[in-house]
Amino acid sequence: MQRTLGTCYYPEHWPEEVWHNDAARMAELGLTWVRIGEFAWGRIEPTPGDLRWDWLDRAIEVLGQAGLKVVLGTPTATPPRWVVDKHPDMLAVDAEGRPRKFGSRRHYCFSHTGYLDECRRIVTLMAERYGRNPHVEAWQTDNEYGCHDTILSYSEAARQAFRDWLAQRYQSPEALNRAWGNVFWSMDYATFDEVDLPNLTVTEPNPSHALDFRRFSSDQVVRFNRVQTEIIHAHSDAPIAHNYMGRVTDFDHYKVGDDLDIASWDSYPLGFLENVVGAEDAHKRRYNRQGDPDFQAFHHDLYRAVGRGRWWVMEQQPGPVNWAPYNPAPLPGMVRLWSWEAFAHGAEAVCYFRWRQAPFAQEQMHAGLLRPDSAEAPAMKEARQVAAEIAKAPEVQPVQAPAALIFDYESDWAWTVQPHGAGLSCFGLVLDCYRALRRAGLSVDIIRAEAAALAGYKAIFAPGLMILHEDLKAALQASEAQVVLGPRAGARTRDMAIPSALPPGLPGVDLRVARVESMRPDMPLPLVGGGAIVGYLDEIEGTGATILETTTGQPVAQQFGSLTYVAGWLDEAGFDRLIREITDRAGLAVRPMPEGVRIRDTSTERFWFNYSDKTVTTEAGDLPPAGVLRQPL
Amino acid sequence: MQRTLGTCYYPEHWPEEVWHNDAARMAELGLTWVRIGEFAWGRIEPTPGDLRWDWLDRAIEVLGQAGLKVVLGTPTATPPRWVVDKHPDMLAVDAEGRPRKFGSRRHYCFSHTGYLDECRRIVTLMAERYGRNPHVEAWQTDNEYGCHDTILSYSEAARQAFRDWLAQRYQSPEALNRAWGNVFWSMDYATFDEVDLPNLTVTEPNPSHALDFRRFSSDQVVRFNRVQTEIIHAHSDAPIAHNYMGRVTDFDHYKVGDDLDIASWDSYPLGFLENVVGAEDAHKRRYNRQGDPDFQAFHHDLYRAVGRGRWWVMEQQPGPVNWAPYNPAPLPGMVRLWSWEAFAHGAEAVCYFRWRQAPFAQEQMHAGLLRPDSAEAPAMKEARQVAAEIAKAPEVQPVQAPAALIFDYESDWAWTVQPHGAGLSCFGLVLDCYRALRRAGLSVDIIRAEAAALAGYKAIFAPGLMILHEDLKAALQASEAQVVLGPRAGARTRDMAIPSALPPGLPGVDLRVARVESMRPDMPLPLVGGGAIVGYLDEIEGTGATILETTTGQPVAQQFGSLTYVAGWLDEAGFDRLIREITDRAGLAVRPMPEGVRIRDTSTERFWFNYSDKTVTTEAGDLPPAGVLRQPL
Amino acid sequence: MQRTLGTCYYPEHWPEEVWHNDAARMAELGLTWVRIGEFAWGRIEPTPGDLRWDWLDRAIEVLGQAGLKVVLGTPTATPPRWVVDKHPDMLAVDAEGRPRKFGSRRHYCFSHTGYLDECRRIVTLMAERYGRNPHVEAWQTDNEYGCHDTILSYSEAARQAFRDWLAQRYQSPEALNRAWGNVFWSMDYATFDEVDLPNLTVTEPNPSHALDFRRFSSDQVVRFNRVQTEIIHAHSDAPIAHNYMGRVTDFDHYKVGDDLDIASWDSYPLGFLENVVGAEDAHKRRYNRQGDPDFQAFHHDLYRAVGRGRWWVMEQQPGPVNWAPYNPAPLPGMVRLWSWEAFAHGAEAVCYFRWRQAPFAQEQMHAGLLRPDSAEAPAMKEARQVAAEIAKAPEVQPVQAPAALIFDYESDWAWTVQPHGAGLSCFGLVLDCYRALRRAGLSVDIIRAEAAALAGYKAIFAPGLMILHEDLKAALQASEAQVVLGPRAGARTRDMAIPSALPPGLPGVDLRVARVESMRPDMPLPLVGGGAIVGYLDEIEGTGATILETTTGQPVAQQFGSLTYVAGWLDEAGFDRLIREITDRAGLAVRPMPEGVRIRDTSTERFWFNYSDKTVTTEAGDLPPAGVLRQPL
Repeated sequence: MQRTLGTCYYPEHWPEEVWHNDAARMAELGLTWVRIGEFAWGRIEPTPGDLRWDWLDRAIEVLGQAGLKVVLGTPTATPPRWVVDKHPDMLAVDAEGRPRKFGSRRHYCFSHTGYLDECRRIVTLMAERYGRNPHVEAWQTDNEYGCHDTILSYSEAARQAFRDWLAQRYQSPEALNRAWGNVFWSMDYATFDEVDLPNLTVTEPNPSHALDFRRFSSDQVVRFNRVQTEIIHAHSDAPIAHNYMGRVTDFDHYKVGDDLDIASWDSYPLGFLENVVGAEDAHKRRYNRQGDPDFQAFHHDLYRAVGRGRWWVMEQQPGPVNWAPYNPAPLPGMVRLWSWEAFAHGAEAVCYFRWRQAPFAQEQMHAGLLRPDSAEAPAMKEARQVAAEIAKAPEVQPVQAPAALIFDYESDWAWTVQPHGAGLSCFGLVLDCYRALRRAGLSVDIIRAEAAALAGYKAIFAPGLMILHEDLKAALQASEAQVVLGPRAGARTRDMAIPSALPPGLPGVDLRVARVESMRPDMPLPLVGGGAIVGYLDEIEGTGATILETTTGQPVAQQFGSLTYVAGWLDEAGFDRLIREITDRAGLAVRPMPEGVRIRDTSTERFWFNYSDKTVTTEAGDLPPAGVLRQPL
Repeated sequence: MQRTLGTCYYPEHWPEEVWHNDAARMAELGLTWVRIGEFAWGRIEPTPGDLRWDWLDRAIEVLGQAGLKVVLGTPTATPPRWVVDKHPDMLAVDAEGRPRKFGSRRHYCFSHTGYLDECRRIVTLMAERYGRNPHVEAWQTDNEYGCHDTILSYSEAARQAFRDWLAQRYQSPEALNRAWGNVFWSMDYATFDEVDLPNLTVTEPNPSHALDFRRFSSDQVVRFNRVQTEIIHAHSDAPIAHNYMGRVTDFDHYKVGDDLDIASWDSYPLGFLENVVGAEDAHKRRYNRQGDPDFQAFHHDLYRAVGRGRWWVMEQQPGPVNWAPYNPAPLPGMVRLWSWEAFAHGAEAVCYFRWRQAPFAQEQMHAGLLRPDSAEAPAMKEARQVAAEIAKAPEVQPVQAPAALIFDYESDWAWTVQPHGAGLSCFGLVLDCYRALRRAGLSVDIIRAEAAALAGYKAIFAPGLMILHEDLKAALQASEAQVVLGPRAGARTRDMAIPSALPPGLPGVDLRVARVESMRPDMPLPLVGGGAIVGYLDEIEGTGATILETTTGQPVAQQFGSLTYVAGWLDEAGFDRLIREITDRAGLAVRPMPEGVRIRDTSTERFWFNYSDKTVTTEAGDLPPAGVLRQPL
Repeated sequence: MQRTLGTCYYPEHWPEEVWHNDAARMAELGLTWVRIGEFAWGRIEPTPGDLRWDWLDRAIEVLGQAGLKVVLGTPTATPPRWVVDKHPDMLAVDAEGRPRKFGSRRHYCFSHTGYLDECRRIVTLMAERYGRNPHVEAWQTDNEYGCHDTILSYSEAARQAFRDWLAQRYQSPEALNRAWGNVFWSMDYATFDEVDLPNLTVTEPNPSHALDFRRFSSDQVVRFNRVQTEIIHAHSDAPIAHNYMGRVTDFDHYKVGDDLDIASWDSYPLGFLENVVGAEDAHKRRYNRQGDPDFQAFHHDLYRAVGRGRWWVMEQQPGPVNWAPYNPAPLPGMVRLWSWEAFAHGAEAVCYFRWRQAPFAQEQMHAGLLRPDSAEAPAMKEARQVAAEIAKAPEVQPVQAPAALIFDYESDWAWTVQPHGAGLSCFGLVLDCYRALRRAGLSVDIIRAEAAALAGYKAIFAPGLMILHEDLKAALQASEAQVVLGPRAGARTRDMAIPSALPPGLPGVDLRVARVESMRPDMPLPLVGGGAIVGYLDEIEGTGATILETTTGQPVAQQFGSLTYVAGWLDEAGFDRLIREITDRAGLAVRPMPEGVRIRDTSTERFWFNYSDKTVTTEAGDLPPAGVLRQPL
């Protein structure tokens, strides 16, 4: 597979006279790709129907002539003011009931059919015009679905669409009432039109109501995206991507990905560390200029699954960003490390966001490869180095990792609806498991919660899989891999109820969760032999072999053949013990990593990455701060 | 007095075929009471006027035939969707001005007369049908008035009703303007219709305005409840209860209680500890699985007053709950301890909430006596033990405690309107005093702020009684008991003004509060001889004997004969010194309690309770964790 | 200059029979001024057009006959209820979109022309009646513009006025689009009527949009105030003041001041310490009863600039206030210290707020010179002492300080719009610089960001001057003073864009900010030789002499002749080093102050103030807690 670099460029932001020079510099740098267009609706169609393709034609031509391949974005994340004036009720409404105003981006409700028609129209026009343009070698739909908390909308359009969705799902109000248990507080509905959106209730809404609203909201994104991919595919043979945003789980990325040819994501390691990773302050200080050592890799592995093997980093942070609470500059070398880490995990392309720092508007403090004065910013040198390195690096073929980790959006929503303890999330639990696997030196595939995804692994981890469908359950039990489930495995039916025979409900496995408890994070439950449970514990009754237990004698992990149930949220030491146990049984070699060091194996090489700011000695040699080391396998 | 046990049951949640078995198991367990019906409006009247009593008839019959006595709840806390559609403006409006939506419970405004009529209708129908049913031996009105912050509503209905209430109270706008001091910022009203509700003002509203709105809101609850009790009393001889929620002080529980035959409250020790007690983290960790050692007892003593001697625990936590930030399982033995503590304080009945854990809807993670699979949950064993113990325990007669503690809702509102320092509340101060009395081994009666309540006590404590009516003032001064007043005693007139001659205004007592100050909680003012003032201090001028003073020489407590004025909020050591001083003068024996141990005397026994998780040696013997010890007197 | 004392009095709050006695006691105390009237609209015009001047005539007469001079306030901060009923849309709307209700004060939108007309009418009537009254010797417009967050309003009136303001500023939508860079996210407007207010956008609005809204909002205050000053000046020769509130920077105080004859501010040292200073807890504890040692002086120096030399303290805290999270009593002596400090900084008058504590309404817990029972509160004794002291104190002439510090409202707004790091503000940076200058024993003039203000200083500090206009830039470069700029000097153009050639853009100075970063406050960057950068750093490229650098070799301060650029936010030790360096070069003597001690030089005396609660030995002698010492120069 050929590795490539690229950048994100906004010709509409700059005088036309600089385009040629910009394009030449991109090419000189060794870039292959240039993404354009995704916020340009206002320049393409400044007033209704007044289409101005000329500048975009010329921009594509200039870039193409310089030898660059264009990724053309549909501009639907930034409808111009006149679109909003034409459809005043297209604005999303937040959970407090307030319409979200024009003046930034993503100001639309996915359920508004008038806006969807506008998108269909502009995307059709764009696909017709550029579908066969030889320089347009890839497409991007919209931009960062879900960024700025834009999936859940409490608008009238969403209300009506949700009622239709429920009618499709349940067919009768009686079925809905039964499924949700609306008898509980006299919450029964006589018609679907009586169902409202689950915000601003006196106390929490029915969790089944809340979960269905999340499913619906995700489906609206899938529908919105599919409208675009169908149009583009009808006019172009170039592959279609969407650039997902890190740590956004409000819609099912796999399902959107099913309509794409390439998954891509936007990687901002320093912004994420301060804003969304959710780590302790000590951890944030330690990795302040490097980013969390596992967060990027987790997303790389996730989007490899979402893209069914084909994935990019569409936006790579090149310097300080503008949007986190604190925005430091990266440690020198990190831009190169981040780029190489993506390639080690199988990325086809890494595109730096953005070519030149914009001196105006919302992202003026977001670094680019060029400074606003067009001089080179520090990242340029590192990008140049990466370009030179990939030019001479051997091509690699994707390789299946020995261990798989299931991440499932539906289960993540179920945790969000019902965390049980403050701060608990499925994403956080899965990430903790991923960290532990990586501390053990393992390469990991993240997979969907589907039977078809299980083949070929020696160990499969499915932490926090609250909604465990029967086919997957059967496949996991039939797997020859070591399978790790829990806590909260199968804790809810698809209707968000506790299974009547109690979870996890594994046929032939004498195990049930008798009750559950959440705990203060400052009250860990220590385990015999080291490690602890923090925050959450299933109280299990089972006849498996207990491999972890609390010092008070409560079983925490039990084995039933190749299946292991883990009842609680393990701390680092606890997870390390679990991983050691499972890998021993699976016959997988463990390679404990020094602090900040991580590895990733391809079919031919082992990549070593040093996220720490100190030189670390490893079996493969000394790794300087931000060091990347390639060890042939 | 016969002690009894019971449970809360929802026949509408379960297939009819399991009712018989459930009833038989309840009876076998030794339960006397079963509360039903309080959320069942949707099953009783699924569409307007379509009344379905048949299932309820059968449920009552099944339970009654099993020997159980039914507490029948009116279903007015959960009006069905069609009621809301009929009266769209019946929804309460929150302080931010947002109507609170259908989809959970308590979604009504107490001031909405249309909804009140609906309640009148359904309660009348229910009372007519079951008023003479031999199995219905008690009633419950509505459910947990005030839970989920539902007393204060800023709806149009509330606005209109508040204006009427003000017109009744003040008779003329001029009188209102004078009483409130509206001249202050040109806030005078020309008509009552100009008065709005006191939310969303630019800065704080007039405190007199805010206090009157709280008085009004409380009166609306009294009115709402009385409509129901009058109807039920007209049709039934069975006693009527309401189940109050812990730490809800937004309405006057005594006044609602005046229309009831029995007060009851819902006791969730672990949920309260994390959610509402307001303690330090160290305290929360220490009592994490036991609950605060004084919080339950405080409410027991409070509701004994509210019920004029007759009171129950209508809902007793049996395991982890679903609604606190963290929801751990109780320490083994605590369900028994909590039950016995209620009986020691005079409860007639303790009912466990709920019989069987519901696998669906909002409370699916709330434990019951049975698990969702109908197996016994851990609490069942403890309930069985309590049932056996009460069967052979001697009957006891209520006994007046030696010490009384006044808790007054109007003063609590005055503190809420004007805490002066962040985090200060009347409830918190009274609870701190109660803790100190209990640390000294005293049994306590909580009493109303009424002259008639004072008789027979050796010591009367009235901390934080901001609004001190003249008749009570006279009675306290005339009392032969040691009386402790302050801080903030009589600090405001009934119109929420500072008395012109300065507080506390006790005739014949040369004492006045020259000024007041609130302090950072991290800046205690140490007292000569130990202890400190934390958070609040009246600067007093008086000629009483100073019994406590700061190390800077400022008097903190002065005595005038049998009356003691305490000028500040004492810390633990300070309160202990005060209690020692007062009990010495009152001739009461003090018995300092070890950490976590508390006692309660009945007329024949001294009960010892160990809230700690360690065995504690006491004069009555060794108390294991969660231990209960009965010492004959 | 004659120093005078005064107080704030509300004749409408008290029975007319006490006025004489009050006036006599004021005169006896030695007061010169009495401010009245600013909240009295409801008594002046209780119903539309029904003007009741009689009581105000008599009040002025009583006060004047007692020898007091009246400051008459216009009552426009508290429009009566009927004004609001006449103009229901005059209420300001908060950033959440909620109209702010009647029931306290400042409930108006500056952009509402109907309300502006009402103000014009009432002020005209008042000026006509009292413009020539011999006792009315000064005026005050409105009260505390901006208090309670009342400058920014998101009302319909504001929306329309903002559009007009933009049309005036930009003349065409195209010009606005270019200036704001609206191409960025297709945010272009076709007409000014498409521009909305920058609240409730999906993510942050365009910073140019936000900054212009702040400029507009400030201009509306200037307009509102000017309507009043023009009317009063047309009818009266008495000087006009406005009483600004501390730490309010939402409008340009200088521009409002240009229409005033006297600037004044309301000084509440203890309330400010807890509520707005933003210090660490240890600092708050240390100065709990004294106030921050620099906060008052900073405002004194600021309002001396705002009033072009003439300024007062219109409201001086005399005891505990009612509005901070904690409201302790001042350390004895502090009321005297605060008063003298104001005089040392050039105040003409210090007026105590308020004469008598009001027992009713919102400020009933705000101390006065008298208690509610008309006895003397503790502050009275100190006020009497000050009165005696100023009577015999020598008159002083204003003297220019050796050092100037620029504080610029426009730059403060730019920081607010774009702080880059959590918690960073221009005000905070300027205050930190001021503290450092004061720690070095320097007297400081705060000056406007104008060329004309620079003359005569030996050192000029301009920290955080994000928007640095060309004329000031030239003047700073031409100045003979040592000039200190940065961080963020000239970081934005007037359109809130990064200058294309990069900041600071000083002609002939080889220096540019290549990029910027914000940092966690718990990650200081240490400097070689001591001190550190905390929170913010410009990465500079320049050829000046590096006088401060990080231990990693990054330059932090460079000198170019008499101009020094400081690239980061220095901690205390860093600032002290900078000040030492600059003062050495400027030939200014430095006099390091002990903790809590500050000095201020007049033309004839050096004043020493001890804000600590311990006796401190200084070169001028021993200073007791709250001590004031006058050392002839």
